[in-house]
Amino acid sequence: MNTFTARDPNFAARIRDSFERQPFMETVGAALSRVEPGRVEIEAPFADHITQQHGFVHGGVIGAIADSAAGYAAYTLMAAEDSVLTVEYKLNLLAPAKGERIVAKAEVIRPGRTLTIVRSDVLAIDGGEEMLCATAVVTLIRMAGQTDHAVG
Amino acid sequence: MNTFTARDPNFAARIRDSFERQPFMETVGAALSRVEPGRVEIEAPFADHITQQHGFVHGGVIGAIADSAAGYAAYTLMAAEDSVLTVEYKLNLLAPAKGERIVAKAEVIRPGRTLTIVRSDVLAIDGGEEMLCATAVVTLIRMAGQTDHAVG
Amino acid sequence: MNTFTARDPNFAARIRDSFERQPFMETVGAALSRVEPGRVEIEAPFADHITQQHGFVHGGVIGAIADSAAGYAAYTLMAAEDSVLTVEYKLNLLAPAKGERIVAKAEVIRPGRTLTIVRSDVLAIDGGEEMLCATAVVTLIRMAGQTDHAVG
Amino acid sequence: MNTFTARDPNFAARIRDSFERQPFMETVGAALSRVEPGRVEIEAPFADHITQQHGFVHGGVIGAIADSAAGYAAYTLMAAEDSVLTVEYKLNLLAPAKGERIVAKAEVIRPGRTLTIVRSDVLAIDGGEEMLCATAVVTLIRMAGQTDHAVG
Repeated sequence: MNTFTARDPNFAARIRDSFERQPFMETVGAALSRVEPGRVEIEAPFADHITQQHGFVHGGVIGAIADSAAGYAAYTLMAAEDSVLTVEYKLNLLAPAKGERIVAKAEVIRPGRTLTIVRSDVLAIDGGEEMLCATAVVTLIRMAGQTDHAVG
Repeated sequence: MNTFTARDPNFAARIRDSFERQPFMETVGAALSRVEPGRVEIEAPFADHITQQHGFVHGGVIGAIADSAAGYAAYTLMAAEDSVLTVEYKLNLLAPAKGERIVAKAEVIRPGRTLTIVRSDVLAIDGGEEMLCATAVVTLIRMAGQTDHAVG
Repeated sequence: MNTFTARDPNFAARIRDSFERQPFMETVGAALSRVEPGRVEIEAPFADHITQQHGFVHGGVIGAIADSAAGYAAYTLMAAEDSVLTVEYKLNLLAPAKGERIVAKAEVIRPGRTLTIVRSDVLAIDGGEEMLCATAVVTLIRMAGQTDHAVG
Repeated sequence: MNTFTARDPNFAARIRDSFERQPFMETVGAALSRVEPGRVEIEAPFADHITQQHGFVHGGVIGAIADSAAGYAAYTLMAAEDSVLTVEYKLNLLAPAKGERIVAKAEVIRPGRTLTIVRSDVLAIDGGEEMLCATAVVTLIRMAGQTDHAVG
């Protein structure tokens, strides 16, 4: 397991602020449950409005929290004056997501000056047991000198 | 451009029925705008509740409609007694998604007895102009002899 | 179909020179068969030394020529003083590759200042007929101000 | 770390036999260095004939051994009368591959009756130090009732 050092001492506040400005995360009901250098977790309670036709959490929601957790994991290691964008992600859906809640656990595999690669696993918590329901690999790009508030 | 033949004459009704049972598609505000053998389009109007922190449509929403359009494109070619699941998808985000609405256009690349591979492009319609904002390749699996209503 | 303009009038010579310095392409028996702005084709004759255990061309060889064609397609649009590296690729194997030869056809989907996204299809030519045997999406990064000879 | 049980007591011999019938692995100079239930390693010494234009191991070779190791990791868990095919893989190239040799370490993430998902990391061994140079996620399909010798 890798150990990372954040260059911005206020990285956690910066990420919580950015997360709160994401209306879609609120739509999904997602919350940041862990923010550490190189590691971020996002969880969402099971709810009908995020399901697909078989009653499981929609693959798009799983992709959304996997991607967001990955983006913020990368962002923990960036400077205050940077922002981050997803270049691409690849998501394997391994098992139907059902239970009380889902949690995306993202960890930086390789930080870089321009690109950062992150693994993001999504677990379903069902009756207290964790089940791996998806795994993603995400490529993120640093937008240097453009704060998260300035993009868009 | 490939031409496909649907084995189930009622494929369009079957797909519209399945789509309507997806609460998350309603949450996003998405609608099926085209259903033909091997080709499905899903579109969603731009709305605040599906955006990320920079005011663009969230990558997770883009992935969700790309994945759903791909799944239904594959499903057009399956039998009435089958259902379909996403195995994996890979999404490249090419440009920020902004404008009036986004449209996912999915087309089967290779139909198969077990696996079907689909390309799904997501366009943003901004001031009447189309802009390619994402492209996905999706692998789907046929669940033989298990109707869409029976899963879950 | 997109139209691209090369900023370096000598892009074709630059790419042929780079290709010839790739020992692995010679090991595979691959040759550049098309070099145009945003589009490159690489082909390789069927040969025993590039097969897997079932007698088909090895997926790794398919990936290698898909990736190389993509890299050079991106490189056609870069400046003489740049070099290019693959960030990641995703390859779907659609059918066994057999016949007289395989051809990777790469086309830029979105050129960018830092990242370029390329689609690369691999066809098998068998008895004069083309069969799509793989499709890849490749993300490339421009190494600004570092010529292809200077890397490494 | 998961623990897997092989249903075929002769899985190791079956895999070594299959590997030896892959001419391309011999072309690359690759060898099986570990075969356990759910885990396979393949390594290849650094050699000029597998390099690209900058003198690093070609991304296609890295993809080839990552894919082969993944396929055999999945194959350890299958029956003697099955064979295995790669559906797709996604490879992130993290660092240039140079040094004495490269090793692909594949581990099954999720075994399945039809599909198996495998992670495959490729390390470069340089002066005795290991450097992660690529990571892949691979989807494999079981060809039931068709031995590895019978395909093709």
